[in-house]
Amino acid sequence: MKTENLLKQVAFIKEIDKLKYIQRRTKLFNSDRNENDVEHSWHLAMMTLVLAEHSDKPIDVLKVVKMVLIHDLVEIDAGDTFIYDTTKNHTNTEEELLAAKRIFGLLPEPQAQEFIAVWEEFEEGITDESKFARAMDRFEPLLQNTSNNGGTWAEFNVEYQTVYNKKKAIMDGSSSIWNYAENLLNESVEKGILRKE
Amino acid sequence: MKTENLLKQVAFIKEIDKLKYIQRRTKLFNSDRNENDVEHSWHLAMMTLVLAEHSDKPIDVLKVVKMVLIHDLVEIDAGDTFIYDTTKNHTNTEEELLAAKRIFGLLPEPQAQEFIAVWEEFEEGITDESKFARAMDRFEPLLQNTSNNGGTWAEFNVEYQTVYNKKKAIMDGSSSIWNYAENLLNESVEKGILRKE
Repeated sequence: MKTENLLKQVAFIKEIDKLKYIQRRTKLFNSDRNENDVEHSWHLAMMTLVLAEHSDKPIDVLKVVKMVLIHDLVEIDAGDTFIYDTTKNHTNTEEELLAAKRIFGLLPEPQAQEFIAVWEEFEEGITDESKFARAMDRFEPLLQNTSNNGGTWAEFNVEYQTVYNKKKAIMDGSSSIWNYAENLLNESVEKGILRKE
Repeated sequence: MKTENLLKQVAFIKEIDKLKYIQRRTKLFNSDRNENDVEHSWHLAMMTLVLAEHSDKPIDVLKVVKMVLIHDLVEIDAGDTFIYDTTKNHTNTEEELLAAKRIFGLLPEPQAQEFIAVWEEFEEGITDESKFARAMDRFEPLLQNTSNNGGTWAEFNVEYQTVYNKKKAIMDGSSSIWNYAENLLNESVEKGILRKE
């Protein structure tokens, strides 16, 4: 049983290597090199470990770390959707659900079910853990764009209110991080790296 | 206090972005692109989540995940030392300790101390958590090299016994993974992708 599990787990470990090839629109800090999904996921996990004290609610840190480490795995099949994409909605699509079933389905059955449940919990954003995980997911590119002279906001001409509407999800996880984030947005407008109509 | 902590934590979050530029000798699976330290760290964290049941001893999974996520951060200052390097020893050097103090020292004091302690625990390899973390650190490049026609073994002409001596650290964490790993090494010799004198 243990050996059978191990073979399935190794197949999964090899498959998820493909996430290293999925490019995001955002760039590394102070850089013009695009970040990939694995680098993004690692950074969110580190942010979770470091910032957990700012969660407004008590959270299971291991659960949040799991969420952020795996939240983008479905993009191996479904690809990355840019958060400010105006034609494709950035929601839990049918395509992503199929991807979750295929990729996590490589694992032994109980483990596959556990990972799919964690991924769905993140996507739904209802529990305290998923709210904090989603706050991390919004906060990292905010830090990147403000370090990169506007980054994707400038590149794709995204307006303040649109950014604000996406970023306010941070508020659901942490009022202190949201306070900091809101100041960053206002400063970005003042600096002229985020357009406000 | 919370705001003061947050400012320090954000400085740390920005600094560790540099780990994405540290290249390893090993390549991605079925690829000739080098893996970077962040990709390696994410993969070890995923392996920990997936393979924890194979630990011979009960382990605190969150502790192991922390270890593998941060274990290479010192390489931002100290660089990556190739495990089969014949001139520089792959041990906890003075240079790495200075790096740990500088990088984790960006965090609020109690957090800095906690992270330095976790990093030192990994380096020492005495606790059950660090043994499992170190097993993951040895297992990933084994899977990569066997997927890459010998990978760094072939590229740097490393001999079976040298590889075996490094890989047997897996045994200290998991007898079932070691059993699998030892078979992989023998198969690699049979296939001619690992030289045995």
